Amino acid sequence: MSDDAVVRPRPEAAVTLRPAAGARIEGGFWGDRQRVNRDVTIPLGGERIRESGAFANLEAAARGAGGEHRGKVFADSDVYKWLEAVAWERGRAGDDERGRTGGDDLGRPYAGDGEGGRSQAGGDGLARAYEEAVALVAAAQRPDGYLHTHTQLTGREPYSDLASSHELYCAGHLMQAAVAGSRALGDDTLLRVATRLADHLVKDLPAGALDGHPQIETALAELYRETGARPYLDLAIRMVTDRGGERLPLKGHHGPGIRQDRVPLREATTVEGHAVRAMYLAAGATDVAVETADADLLAALTRQWRDMVATKTYLTGGLGSVWYGEQFGGPHELTPETAYCETCAAVGSVQWSWRMLLATGEAAFADLMERTLHNAVLPGISLGGDRFFYVNALRVRAGANPDDRRAAARGRQDWYGTACCPPNVMRLLSSLDHYLATGDDEGVQVHLYAPGTIRAGGVLLEVETDYPWGGRVELVVRETPDHPWTLALRIPAWADGAGVEARFGGGDQRADPGVDGRTVAPGGYHRVRRVWRRGDRVTLDLAVRPRLTAAVPRLDVARGQVAVERGPLVYCLEQADHPGVIVDDLCLDTNPGLRDGSPVTGLPAEVVPVVARGRAHVHRADDAGFPYRTAGAPREPEHEGPVALTFVPYYAWANRGTGPMTIWTPMH
Amino acid sequence: MSDDAVVRPRPEAAVTLRPAAGARIEGGFWGDRQRVNRDVTIPLGGERIRESGAFANLEAAARGAGGEHRGKVFADSDVYKWLEAVAWERGRAGDDERGRTGGDDLGRPYAGDGEGGRSQAGGDGLARAYEEAVALVAAAQRPDGYLHTHTQLTGREPYSDLASSHELYCAGHLMQAAVAGSRALGDDTLLRVATRLADHLVKDLPAGALDGHPQIETALAELYRETGARPYLDLAIRMVTDRGGERLPLKGHHGPGIRQDRVPLREATTVEGHAVRAMYLAAGATDVAVETADADLLAALTRQWRDMVATKTYLTGGLGSVWYGEQFGGPHELTPETAYCETCAAVGSVQWSWRMLLATGEAAFADLMERTLHNAVLPGISLGGDRFFYVNALRVRAGANPDDRRAAARGRQDWYGTACCPPNVMRLLSSLDHYLATGDDEGVQVHLYAPGTIRAGGVLLEVETDYPWGGRVELVVRETPDHPWTLALRIPAWADGAGVEARFGGGDQRADPGVDGRTVAPGGYHRVRRVWRRGDRVTLDLAVRPRLTAAVPRLDVARGQVAVERGPLVYCLEQADHPGVIVDDLCLDTNPGLRDGSPVTGLPAEVVPVVARGRAHVHRADDAGFPYRTAGAPREPEHEGPVALTFVPYYAWANRGTGPMTIWTPMH
Repeated sequence: MSDDAVVRPRPEAAVTLRPAAGARIEGGFWGDRQRVNRDVTIPLGGERIRESGAFANLEAAARGAGGEHRGKVFADSDVYKWLEAVAWERGRAGDDERGRTGGDDLGRPYAGDGEGGRSQAGGDGLARAYEEAVALVAAAQRPDGYLHTHTQLTGREPYSDLASSHELYCAGHLMQAAVAGSRALGDDTLLRVATRLADHLVKDLPAGALDGHPQIETALAELYRETGARPYLDLAIRMVTDRGGERLPLKGHHGPGIRQDRVPLREATTVEGHAVRAMYLAAGATDVAVETADADLLAALTRQWRDMVATKTYLTGGLGSVWYGEQFGGPHELTPETAYCETCAAVGSVQWSWRMLLATGEAAFADLMERTLHNAVLPGISLGGDRFFYVNALRVRAGANPDDRRAAARGRQDWYGTACCPPNVMRLLSSLDHYLATGDDEGVQVHLYAPGTIRAGGVLLEVETDYPWGGRVELVVRETPDHPWTLALRIPAWADGAGVEARFGGGDQRADPGVDGRTVAPGGYHRVRRVWRRGDRVTLDLAVRPRLTAAVPRLDVARGQVAVERGPLVYCLEQADHPGVIVDDLCLDTNPGLRDGSPVTGLPAEVVPVVARGRAHVHRADDAGFPYRTAGAPREPEHEGPVALTFVPYYAWANRGTGPMTIWTPMH
Repeated sequence: MSDDAVVRPRPEAAVTLRPAAGARIEGGFWGDRQRVNRDVTIPLGGERIRESGAFANLEAAARGAGGEHRGKVFADSDVYKWLEAVAWERGRAGDDERGRTGGDDLGRPYAGDGEGGRSQAGGDGLARAYEEAVALVAAAQRPDGYLHTHTQLTGREPYSDLASSHELYCAGHLMQAAVAGSRALGDDTLLRVATRLADHLVKDLPAGALDGHPQIETALAELYRETGARPYLDLAIRMVTDRGGERLPLKGHHGPGIRQDRVPLREATTVEGHAVRAMYLAAGATDVAVETADADLLAALTRQWRDMVATKTYLTGGLGSVWYGEQFGGPHELTPETAYCETCAAVGSVQWSWRMLLATGEAAFADLMERTLHNAVLPGISLGGDRFFYVNALRVRAGANPDDRRAAARGRQDWYGTACCPPNVMRLLSSLDHYLATGDDEGVQVHLYAPGTIRAGGVLLEVETDYPWGGRVELVVRETPDHPWTLALRIPAWADGAGVEARFGGGDQRADPGVDGRTVAPGGYHRVRRVWRRGDRVTLDLAVRPRLTAAVPRLDVARGQVAVERGPLVYCLEQADHPGVIVDDLCLDTNPGLRDGSPVTGLPAEVVPVVARGRAHVHRADDAGFPYRTAGAPREPEHEGPVALTFVPYYAWANRGTGPMTIWTPMH
């Protein structure tokens, strides 16, 4: 098993938790998504990126002459993110090929070649494509280490237009791909390219230079972690510190905040501006904070994270409510229909929260990660893995203007001219195993629940679960040291009524002395400390069942409405399940009797819908007139009914055509 | 009194109503706005337009050489709209100078020079500025009649980039200014320029050519009405007919609808795309429909207007909910905080509705005009007349991102780089008199209530009122023919409890046989037919008092909330009146006891606020966390209270600094 943590603080870093030595998802909810990612999305992504001209740009740069650059200035980053995804994916396949410790019963073997011919890049094809692309990247690099095809092909002076050029943004993604290649494959080919570029930056980047789009900060920190080269961390520190000094030129009608350059991070009290940039920068700043033991910076980031969660986060975990500039709105400005919720922002949010979790060990960070993964990252990719959302609306109404090019009205797309999101999901899915668990001197902490194995500090845990469809999670100790250690299990904040049972000694069920009877408190970690033996078994029941969720009064767009959630999943009403009525008209009965439903047509059989009693508002003829009326007049909404409402997980929406959809539903 | 109707269908046009021969606002609510427009806004606008380089462009074009063009491609239109405003304003001043028929007691004389030195362009200054600008426009016109300074200065081929160049848009505004000059001043200098340009269009415009921004259609129709030159109407007909054939190239990520080129007008069932373009085109199409007696086209426009009112109109009358492309959203997509509600769209809506009112005589069109004038046009200009809103948000929340450049977060602006809105308000205010009333063979129809005089078909009415602050409108017959005629008074749809009284024969009060006792039905015209005598007096009481307004269920963003209205005015809660609490937290008591309040600090004394009983939602410490919570838990919102709520007219907001504001308030 390679040491393949996606984030790996240095031994001296000021962190509370450290990534588990290894964790592996085997099937289940996320395993299925990883399989689709490997079999469909990654091969398709390679093709789309090739079609976009991004490989051609590298080829042209490798030839050394100038020439036409195709696509966006940040086209290189699509290649790098795809390479990162392939590296993690090949690393997981390699583990399988080498055999794993977890025993034969741990799930189906990983077999990239098992369905040969299904994908060009699968298995050997994937390895070949990876190695060719890595060689191409290496060839495109200038002898002096510089690499950015748009700059090279257009003949612009390097680092002369950093506000717009995305040179450092691309460099950062190269570094992350290189670290993945090194950790997942033990291959330092790309790492050599990345360090040569990083050395060029250290040497030649003008003093005070910042990229318009943060990303390189966290990449430099990780490259430092991988190589030990302190100048990379120093450069990241400098960039995190300089940010917010209004050093960058203004863009369009925007102020400096759009480029994260209005308020220094150490002074900021909230997140603002472009949501993806904010997340990437915050992730890098967290890396800097822990590597330099900068408690003030970490406190500032904690403050910003909390404010973001309290005032600028959609129920799904999605971020960004302003289309203009792809940015955060004001506090509580979380309109569902105009939600931007860029898929990349959700990926960035997971990255930041993971780093905060490592730094602090606080469950709230893992709670947001789980919410975001299920409800803000995953909606960005179709169930088939071949169509995408860049923007994730939380409401689409009937009769949406067919000429309105906002994403929700158009449905999922095959690809995007700005294709940052699809490969971002690819790399996150292919490295998702690394976010499951951590280890520290005390023991093992399990943050996300998926079937598979977790290895940390001499412990090997086997996890069995059909979570999130069911709430039952079985954890079996397969290897353990002789000394006592603590198993910490995250109990999500929503998991009222969660319980734990344990069977020790491989047989009799005995009360766990660390458990208060059957229930455990939500919103933290339930800890069991003991001398463990092989075969010890802990059963967690997260009490997954449908529930109604309301918003605080300041969240005016949700007033008078509720959302349906079930476990970590946010649900929605979709038109496909409601023939004969329009989703816009549906409302819940005051006593809606939420319960799990039978599988719905067109979605995989394992998807558990939630059914409820509802009605449809009636539109009488006079409703066709001015839609405002004197209140208090005896014209309360009339209803047709009853209507059986079917809620489906929001991540699964828009897989059966695009139509009206809402996550908020009025009560009566 | 010049024959100065702003819209004047030809005698043979298929209209139901015809503009009154003359109407004149004397003081009162709108008279005050006109005074500020004349004394402050128009002079200031002339300066701002000069500073923008628009006059310099004309000067450069007049010199005949190419050269730098300053500002936007449509900069010429700012000059033309300003000239139109000045023409109407000078026409009104000229009436005063010549003396008027209404008697000395009809209001204060119009005296542009009365406060000499206050404005450079006032009185004689205004006349001089007008004549200089007209001469400059004439000089800038090419010998062959072509005129568009951007095209002339950049050397681009005329009509070669109509999708973007705004050549015809500018030409249309020139024509409207020229018609105003002719009608208001009897001056045909600009009219000669306009007809030479129109002739150039008729001769040289490529077949099928359309401007990306409709506007010229209504202008060509009016130029035809003014000159009788049928080719101008024919060109307008052709443009209205060709529209919707996807003839224009696409723009950015938009479909053809953004340029009103997706669905032919005769087939369209709703309005879509760029809201200002939609309104201007619809106005021109209505002109075409009545001048050609095209009942099918009028029916299509009626259908589109009704759908717009039913599904795409804010409570204020504002139009356009999508920032991206300044366009209409889907039906019921009317989010207050992201309202675009461009001031120009409101001006265009008034222009369209007026044309529909002339065509059909239906009160609903006048109802929307009144709503829009008070609540969507007027908010676009400060009470002092010197600061502007291009975009009109209907909600601003506490803690708005200071780096968010959307208008509401920035407050009113001195001027705009795209300065279409301020001069649009100027020309509408300076011609507002023309929208008050119409005449037909039956008599006189009064649509808007303002103190002043109305002349139509041998009738001279004097109107006295402090509407909209009070609901009482006195109409006195000052001149009348001997034969019977009908006085038709619009009773707004909101005016439940309106009543009419009459005193005939100049003395005794007698029951009016045309009135059912004291009350009249809202939402139409109350008609009184008789042989009138001088001194006959009709008193209308529009029952202006505060009321609560709710939205239909589909309008989800207003669920659980109400708005306060009073007469034609939409009210809002503004932070300035609520020290110690935040507007975002305010809610109305279930029994709020709405009543008129005393004048509020910082607004003119005549502004009637509405006060009510309310409370403030309490934000406890746990509200600082994730803003979503399981519903049904015993954590209903807690309140502080009582809080005295003060609602002020929305048009008057943002005159005391910018802060939180809302037109929708939750009930409890």
